[in-house]
Amino acid sequence: MHKESRYINWQLIFNFGSLITIFLCYLRPWRPGCHVSSCRSVSCSHQLLSAIESFDRRSSEIPQKSKTLRKERSGRRDRAIMSVNADLQRERAAATLDSEDFARWWAGGSWQLEERRALERRFYEDPDFAEPVHPSCLSYKERYQQTVARSTRFLAKLRQWQQEKQPQLQLSVNMLRDFRLLLSGSLGTGLFQQSFPLRVHFSMFMTTLLSQGTEEQQAQWLNRSWHMDGVLGTYAQTELGHGTFVRGLETRADYDPITQEFILNTPTQSSYKWWPGGLGNTANVAIVLAQLYVKGKHYGLQSFVVRIRDERTHEPLTGVDVGDIGPRLGGNGVNNGFLGLRDVRIPRNQMLMKNAQVLNDGTFVQGRPPLLLYGTMVYVRVITLKDVLFGLLQAATIATRYSVVRRQSRINSDQPEVSVLDHITQQAKILPQIARGVSYRLVSDWLWRFYEDVLRQLEDESTAGRNSLPELHALSCCLKAVASDEASEGVDLLRKSCGGHGFLSSANFDSIYGLTAAAYTYEGEYTVLLLQTARFLVRQYVDSLKRKVLPSSVSYLRDTSRLVWGKNLAANCVRALEISAMEQVRQAWQTQKTHQSSKVSAEMASNLAGRQLTSAAIAHAHAFFTRNALEQVEALRKKGDLSPNVSLVLSQLVELFVIDTFLRQSGCVLRWNNGITGTQLRFVERRFEELLAKLRPNAVALVDGFDFHDRVLGSTLGCHDGRVYERLMEEARRNPVNQEPVNSSFHNHLLPMMRGKL
Amino acid sequence: MHKESRYINWQLIFNFGSLITIFLCYLRPWRPGCHVSSCRSVSCSHQLLSAIESFDRRSSEIPQKSKTLRKERSGRRDRAIMSVNADLQRERAAATLDSEDFARWWAGGSWQLEERRALERRFYEDPDFAEPVHPSCLSYKERYQQTVARSTRFLAKLRQWQQEKQPQLQLSVNMLRDFRLLLSGSLGTGLFQQSFPLRVHFSMFMTTLLSQGTEEQQAQWLNRSWHMDGVLGTYAQTELGHGTFVRGLETRADYDPITQEFILNTPTQSSYKWWPGGLGNTANVAIVLAQLYVKGKHYGLQSFVVRIRDERTHEPLTGVDVGDIGPRLGGNGVNNGFLGLRDVRIPRNQMLMKNAQVLNDGTFVQGRPPLLLYGTMVYVRVITLKDVLFGLLQAATIATRYSVVRRQSRINSDQPEVSVLDHITQQAKILPQIARGVSYRLVSDWLWRFYEDVLRQLEDESTAGRNSLPELHALSCCLKAVASDEASEGVDLLRKSCGGHGFLSSANFDSIYGLTAAAYTYEGEYTVLLLQTARFLVRQYVDSLKRKVLPSSVSYLRDTSRLVWGKNLAANCVRALEISAMEQVRQAWQTQKTHQSSKVSAEMASNLAGRQLTSAAIAHAHAFFTRNALEQVEALRKKGDLSPNVSLVLSQLVELFVIDTFLRQSGCVLRWNNGITGTQLRFVERRFEELLAKLRPNAVALVDGFDFHDRVLGSTLGCHDGRVYERLMEEARRNPVNQEPVNSSFHNHLLPMMRGKL
Repeated sequence: MHKESRYINWQLIFNFGSLITIFLCYLRPWRPGCHVSSCRSVSCSHQLLSAIESFDRRSSEIPQKSKTLRKERSGRRDRAIMSVNADLQRERAAATLDSEDFARWWAGGSWQLEERRALERRFYEDPDFAEPVHPSCLSYKERYQQTVARSTRFLAKLRQWQQEKQPQLQLSVNMLRDFRLLLSGSLGTGLFQQSFPLRVHFSMFMTTLLSQGTEEQQAQWLNRSWHMDGVLGTYAQTELGHGTFVRGLETRADYDPITQEFILNTPTQSSYKWWPGGLGNTANVAIVLAQLYVKGKHYGLQSFVVRIRDERTHEPLTGVDVGDIGPRLGGNGVNNGFLGLRDVRIPRNQMLMKNAQVLNDGTFVQGRPPLLLYGTMVYVRVITLKDVLFGLLQAATIATRYSVVRRQSRINSDQPEVSVLDHITQQAKILPQIARGVSYRLVSDWLWRFYEDVLRQLEDESTAGRNSLPELHALSCCLKAVASDEASEGVDLLRKSCGGHGFLSSANFDSIYGLTAAAYTYEGEYTVLLLQTARFLVRQYVDSLKRKVLPSSVSYLRDTSRLVWGKNLAANCVRALEISAMEQVRQAWQTQKTHQSSKVSAEMASNLAGRQLTSAAIAHAHAFFTRNALEQVEALRKKGDLSPNVSLVLSQLVELFVIDTFLRQSGCVLRWNNGITGTQLRFVERRFEELLAKLRPNAVALVDGFDFHDRVLGSTLGCHDGRVYERLMEEARRNPVNQEPVNSSFHNHLLPMMRGKL
Repeated sequence: MHKESRYINWQLIFNFGSLITIFLCYLRPWRPGCHVSSCRSVSCSHQLLSAIESFDRRSSEIPQKSKTLRKERSGRRDRAIMSVNADLQRERAAATLDSEDFARWWAGGSWQLEERRALERRFYEDPDFAEPVHPSCLSYKERYQQTVARSTRFLAKLRQWQQEKQPQLQLSVNMLRDFRLLLSGSLGTGLFQQSFPLRVHFSMFMTTLLSQGTEEQQAQWLNRSWHMDGVLGTYAQTELGHGTFVRGLETRADYDPITQEFILNTPTQSSYKWWPGGLGNTANVAIVLAQLYVKGKHYGLQSFVVRIRDERTHEPLTGVDVGDIGPRLGGNGVNNGFLGLRDVRIPRNQMLMKNAQVLNDGTFVQGRPPLLLYGTMVYVRVITLKDVLFGLLQAATIATRYSVVRRQSRINSDQPEVSVLDHITQQAKILPQIARGVSYRLVSDWLWRFYEDVLRQLEDESTAGRNSLPELHALSCCLKAVASDEASEGVDLLRKSCGGHGFLSSANFDSIYGLTAAAYTYEGEYTVLLLQTARFLVRQYVDSLKRKVLPSSVSYLRDTSRLVWGKNLAANCVRALEISAMEQVRQAWQTQKTHQSSKVSAEMASNLAGRQLTSAAIAHAHAFFTRNALEQVEALRKKGDLSPNVSLVLSQLVELFVIDTFLRQSGCVLRWNNGITGTQLRFVERRFEELLAKLRPNAVALVDGFDFHDRVLGSTLGCHDGRVYERLMEEARRNPVNQEPVNSSFHNHLLPMMRGKL
């Protein structure tokens, strides 16, 4: 994808309706596809420093020159030295992979890499954006306040930068796109590890105005929104009692033809809006999804622009009950909120009317049907795929560096403790995660291109585009589901691979996990998405029985030949995964049929076949991920843009990913490929371990090549300089609870207790 | 186990050394084995209430009598009504299992059940122990202060209760045991979801004094400790740079024969003590593990009692650098700390000298070798097994109740949305977790009895005890590792099964997950423990080749017969798992041999065979868990104490656990049992689904039977009354960020930004 993908047609995207819960934006940095390819960073200066200052000593073995307890060791003086951990230096010196080579490819080119680095320096070197207290030490309210303060500074500085670049600042779709890109990705993550409440204003709120508002409505709202002139928006769809089943939403808007107003109500407790980002205490306008009623007749879900707080005082308006929904496993900077509405009246022109209208007299006019909804959904899922691989590789970078710095247990009893990464069990935890992240990246790039092709075809009103939509939809569902599941599992495994220290909030795994784990649920819950893919697969399978031509991603469903074990191990693995997927689709279809023939309805039969259906979708995702990643790496190799070492390492990673997937799925694989012999399996396992050994020397260079800035990693364990123990100590000392030698609770509680005044 | 297990020989336990990191106590409620069997609770009054007030209406459908927005609905008035969710009521009415029957068995008897309920009422109904603000809203420092305040009140009230029960209050081992039991389990969890800093004083600190102190030392310290008279203790072993490899600890104690003192130092940054519970701001005395040096000669690790804070002022003493290590993924009430020592002198009699002594002149006298160390380690691991199943079943209770209350998606399009638990995919997520928790409980009871037997034999100095130790050790290692891994995975799956709401901190999955996930690492890291078991297995396998008799838990290693598929599905599954384990042990042994023959050292060969060794240990754990659970449920059935319905449900649960384990391990199983046919697998799968259908109607009654008090669950989603949406709303409204209509950051930051003063 890379460069060309920056020129996707945003207007088209905006034209799609946004009826689905774009939960994503409530919670998660908004990272359009092309962004991941240009959003990794390293503190380049650190690298230089490490070359210049080659102290060959372990940071944990700083010699004590005097016997005085040097508390200040972890303070300013030490920071001035900033030596790089000697083990990390050795790893870097011995690598055959040039991490800068890799970084350039990963970023999509030299220019992209350097531009991002420059922008990051601008922010990360600005003391205004330093973090005096670790956010995990703050109260929920303090965290909110700190996030708002910082995000206003952030927006100001970003505007300034944009003005320097493009002095003729005028609102356009492209500008909004560029701006949103800047709010997220590595810059957004580095400044707001848990996201921030104003992001949804530029993502969901303005996007929906553009996609669903008429020209007049856009004239009324867009410019003010862009300048945040009295408008801080959010997008309110999900309710306390209703998520996935959108038709079940209870919020209603009744049209009153006399006053020409809509009257909005959340009639029950379960109909309270619940989750919208920024809604809690920040937004003053919400786009509210509600069931439209005119003269008692129901016209489905529509979007309404509702002012919820006074523009000047910020007080909630009459009939508005609004607040924050409280702390969560992740994304605690978002200010997710709840909203109750009681007879809130808005003028008729505040229903977004591009696709459907209510005339003055209450006549309802339906515009074009939301056929292209698929497009937005796919778009969001591709982004989610990129988000979770971003989180997975953040975690992998931290774990890799820490596993080199951390020495634990001897291998040979006459030698000192070794770097944890020298234990094969540790390599087997970490390297497959890197392989997975990189392979997901290759597949997500392909998926993005496929998505763009379909969009272009739809724009040209070609039937090819229309025909490809179901395939695109089905793929995006299962790939998002499986990737978010495996990535969050991977982040957790990587945390565990760092032992006790991985458990500390200052290691930042908890925060990365929170965001990655959220992706399992938002924008289509895991099981729901799998069932959607499964329905497609079963339909295709039935078509295959009728000898119809199948879309290419499922063409293997027609191939009933058994596995022929050839010399190419990875190819064998992929074929075995495909056979396994095909058989599981068949089994799901048969289970449905069996249940249907035993007197239950078709819907109930689907419910009863739920396990088989979801298994089939998972198997399909694995087959597709592995096949596609192999194809992509082969295409890159043929294209010849890569340096030989980058190309070699990429091939090793993808092969490791394929074999790892095969081994992890061996239950299904062996069930449906009973010709695979023990010897063949031993070959696969041996190759798995060979690949670990081959990748091991490049592990640090590889994660350096993802080019995450230290601020993006936000981890005491994962910084580029490997000063793990120093940073753990510094972070602990910064904690407000350590700022006074004796906590007040001693005098208030402990001392009375010790004096027997229990 | 149940009743008899209350009479374990605690003195024996205390006699064991405690050289291993008893990390557990730093972090986790201390729940001796017999405790779990008597520590579940239900708000009985709620049950009565639900019987009396049978409002047949869904709580989410409270009719609005007037159109006024009744904010107070979620306030006092509503709480007075306290209706129980109608769907939950229906479930309870339709169940065939009597949850009180189950609860009595689960608690170990009626008396245990009622005593615990009475004690819980005493605390939970006391407004002094209400929680005005959800802990996740507090800052880290506020949380610490609130926890200290509450724990001093808790200890006072507990002492009062104990005095009423036993007016002749005199310190004894039994009393300490009873007291520690009260600090933990359901009472400790209900009051301190994230534990509290003073627990380690009664667990590790006093235990170590008892186990390693001489009589004089006990006379000096124990009574003061019991009364917390100027002594608040902790136990400091783990260091910043050293965990698993205990010999690598760097803290040193040099004996000065002139002053007859030890001089303690943490000579490097990596030797700072790191993790001890209560160390941060609470403890004033620490038992410090340090390398003993006399006249430059090294005498291994010893324990020293070191005062670190002034008894009266609580100021850190000269040479002491102490503080809190900061927030973590879980257990944030513990006040884990760091400790640096610089030339801190303590008198000679503050080295704990029961097992080794330093005489006045510096002569070192070694006592008996720490042969019995195994005992403590096993003890701790059995407790961990019980802890993680406690967490797993807390989570399962929350998810089950919520899955009944939550309605989502239709099955038949002409019907309303169904309870999520009616989807088979949801049953397949939740019910196997309940089955796993219950099966773990059966196995942990057996393990506890085995442990007691071995202890008794050791006490009698019988060789049987000595011979059983390696088996006991190996079993406890792999069972703890696998159970903590699977339980934390289960908790996470249960969270995900609750969709978006499961992500909220008020659902409490994050807190339960934090504690359960910690068990993966503390008291022996997962991989390290598996490798210990694997070494035992390989030794046994070699013995089997020599036709030696093997301990019963590994006797299957001698059975080389192939799987004969019989009528009993569960028995087939267990046998297949055993064959799979046996083959994996053999493969690990062969891999080691192969590597050894290729010129690497034995240690390196073990490292290179790491993946095979850990797989073998995991497979052994699965084989043992399933075999043993089946045996235990059969023994219970034969004993005939259970009501028929409890007995039936238990059998179903254990069978589900066995089949679920078989299916989850199908990769290994099929690899090593290639005679298993597709038809046989389909039978197993069908039985799995049959069991889901059989257990489904009793799901709510079952989790009611675990008898967790609402306070122990600590969840908006999981309360006994099922008032999910009301509680979510109430919890949100309590949040301090919602206490003022307009947050100060509006005037300070948002308004200036909106006015273009960016």
